[in-house]
Amino acid sequence: MNTIALITDFGMADGFVGTMKGVILSIAPQARIIDISHDSAPQHTHHAAFVLWSSYKYFPEETIFVAVVDPGVGTERRIILVEDSGGKKFLVPENGILRFILPELRNPKAYHINNDKYWLKQVSTTFHGRDIFAPVAAHLVNGERGEQLGARIEIPVPDSPFINIGPSTKEQNGKIVHLDRFGNLITNLRPQFDEQDDVRNFSLEIGNRTIKPLKKTYGDGEYGELLALVGSSGLIEVAVRNSSAQQMLGLRVGDPVVIRRGGSG
Amino acid sequence: MNTIALITDFGMADGFVGTMKGVILSIAPQARIIDISHDSAPQHTHHAAFVLWSSYKYFPEETIFVAVVDPGVGTERRIILVEDSGGKKFLVPENGILRFILPELRNPKAYHINNDKYWLKQVSTTFHGRDIFAPVAAHLVNGERGEQLGARIEIPVPDSPFINIGPSTKEQNGKIVHLDRFGNLITNLRPQFDEQDDVRNFSLEIGNRTIKPLKKTYGDGEYGELLALVGSSGLIEVAVRNSSAQQMLGLRVGDPVVIRRGGSG
Amino acid sequence: MNTIALITDFGMADGFVGTMKGVILSIAPQARIIDISHDSAPQHTHHAAFVLWSSYKYFPEETIFVAVVDPGVGTERRIILVEDSGGKKFLVPENGILRFILPELRNPKAYHINNDKYWLKQVSTTFHGRDIFAPVAAHLVNGERGEQLGARIEIPVPDSPFINIGPSTKEQNGKIVHLDRFGNLITNLRPQFDEQDDVRNFSLEIGNRTIKPLKKTYGDGEYGELLALVGSSGLIEVAVRNSSAQQMLGLRVGDPVVIRRGGSG
Repeated sequence: MNTIALITDFGMADGFVGTMKGVILSIAPQARIIDISHDSAPQHTHHAAFVLWSSYKYFPEETIFVAVVDPGVGTERRIILVEDSGGKKFLVPENGILRFILPELRNPKAYHINNDKYWLKQVSTTFHGRDIFAPVAAHLVNGERGEQLGARIEIPVPDSPFINIGPSTKEQNGKIVHLDRFGNLITNLRPQFDEQDDVRNFSLEIGNRTIKPLKKTYGDGEYGELLALVGSSGLIEVAVRNSSAQQMLGLRVGDPVVIRRGGSG
Repeated sequence: MNTIALITDFGMADGFVGTMKGVILSIAPQARIIDISHDSAPQHTHHAAFVLWSSYKYFPEETIFVAVVDPGVGTERRIILVEDSGGKKFLVPENGILRFILPELRNPKAYHINNDKYWLKQVSTTFHGRDIFAPVAAHLVNGERGEQLGARIEIPVPDSPFINIGPSTKEQNGKIVHLDRFGNLITNLRPQFDEQDDVRNFSLEIGNRTIKPLKKTYGDGEYGELLALVGSSGLIEVAVRNSSAQQMLGLRVGDPVVIRRGGSG
Repeated sequence: MNTIALITDFGMADGFVGTMKGVILSIAPQARIIDISHDSAPQHTHHAAFVLWSSYKYFPEETIFVAVVDPGVGTERRIILVEDSGGKKFLVPENGILRFILPELRNPKAYHINNDKYWLKQVSTTFHGRDIFAPVAAHLVNGERGEQLGARIEIPVPDSPFINIGPSTKEQNGKIVHLDRFGNLITNLRPQFDEQDDVRNFSLEIGNRTIKPLKKTYGDGEYGELLALVGSSGLIEVAVRNSSAQQMLGLRVGDPVVIRRGGSG
């Protein structure tokens, strides 16, 4: 009930994150604040959206997630609170940062955070993380409810960005949705096999390369070998053992991939 | 009473910060430790001084701020504790790191931290963050008072580095005092307008450019446009929407600016 | 009993560390999590091994150290728990990351972490930090003991990597064992002098330079001067005041140094 998990693009050099924490503790001294990431590429909502999705399931119910990657700060974009029926809460600018999460939430309820009684008295046009997000998150820890913080709204729930790969899949187009610190290229292809089938029955086209067959673990690859496997989020990813697939292939988020049955054969 | 907020230039790769936290928790297990910034440019006290100033007001009273950007470690520079009458405490090397804060404190009391009873038994010449700052901060959390930790001293209070811009201002010289992660250039000019006046009545000279008129929000600018506005710390800053003003202008801390009445007219 | 100190090479951009913290708090809400470092060079166990060694002594007894720099994740490398008789615990992949620490532990007891009852239900092949290390650390906070988490094993204790320099030392070969954020080059030479002797009686050969004599503090050097002194971990290190010795000399971990009596004379 008192955990706040933060994602921002503020970095750790300027004190923006520390200032938000100061505001939170001034209002809710019992808050427990966890940093998920503050090194998103500045104003890159796609990166933060993926990071939030890949981590939120592992936090306790009742966690309050606060994501401040907000290129529209000071414009008419809304700040919204979305609550899952399990108790997880997401306080974010309405800019697509929940695109990976919304399709998975159970009975999400959304609020337009517009009750300035719960904000700092002086609200700048450039730092809503400090002036709105931090105090609202702290008031949530103190037990205030969505109804008090703003108006109930309906928000569109996008289609899932992920494509399931199963026993009946012969060929499927996909794309790169994330690039991680190790240079691994994560795709939106999500295997859901039964016991007779596994990734080794498939090959993957990426860039101008064909990786064949897919592997079960990093350990199945040689040092320096380009390989594809199911990564820790359940998605097919492309990696180079002890090196960077991104550097080897020069690809980026959005670039296409194709998976095809016919791997080891 | 138990919050310690840290600013250092130690980075997060080497374990210096973690070691300080280990020392603090060994002495005061109830301490709550908040990171403000550990990515100050190494040994750049000006950057840390600004970050400390921009964040300290947002922390709870009784917070103990510990700033270890200390190029003079091991020399004769003093370590001082400065207490505000509101209860905030600042434990720092005496090297100018409080230059932005001191003019704002109410009845500051200062102590020369020279009672080695509260330090680690072995004090290195190169890591006073671990050997002096961390244990002294922990003893403050445990309730020790400035008088026990060192000798009462008088310290000079510098003039405010900020220049107020008000209804009677026609023209005013200023300078860049900070460069943030987003490439925004923050000046020492602080508007204090009444209801009839605002920044849109002014223009700003910076580098070889004139920005005219000043804007009220980032949202008033086009993508890629150089613009000036009042930033989140109440100071005039120069920004490029979704890009870096610092890269566009190639300026640095200390470079001059001029604000002039005559904006939109 | 409830402090978990983390070292990883996960960086802070991707949310790997935040995900581990989510898992820990889901199992052990009372855990206190401290970050030692997440910026180890990816898959560089030597760096993390040194950082762990340089910081662990300063943490409370009963601290649970979790180091996840794990290039062999998903292969047959074991995950081990090592307990010191003082109560400190180390949960690590068995890949040499304890090479600096093991020679110093008192009566270390080791366990092969192989009881998957204490892991997440789904264990990926690529993110054991989330699926094994985090839940096992949380169960340690909850009071589970090594015997429950895995099988008692014997592990080899390597020789100390450090070489003592004392009153009888005339000349000694050593090497660089660590490079820190400030560009300081840390060697494995550890002075243990008596009152009649000190580093100023010695010179140091490093790269193609001879530094003579060694200094007692950074403050004894000029700005820009290459100097050698005893650093904060008790080891001889080479530094340039307000600059980087690594950049000046172009050396790396493993490169040789020689210390010789005959310093100021």
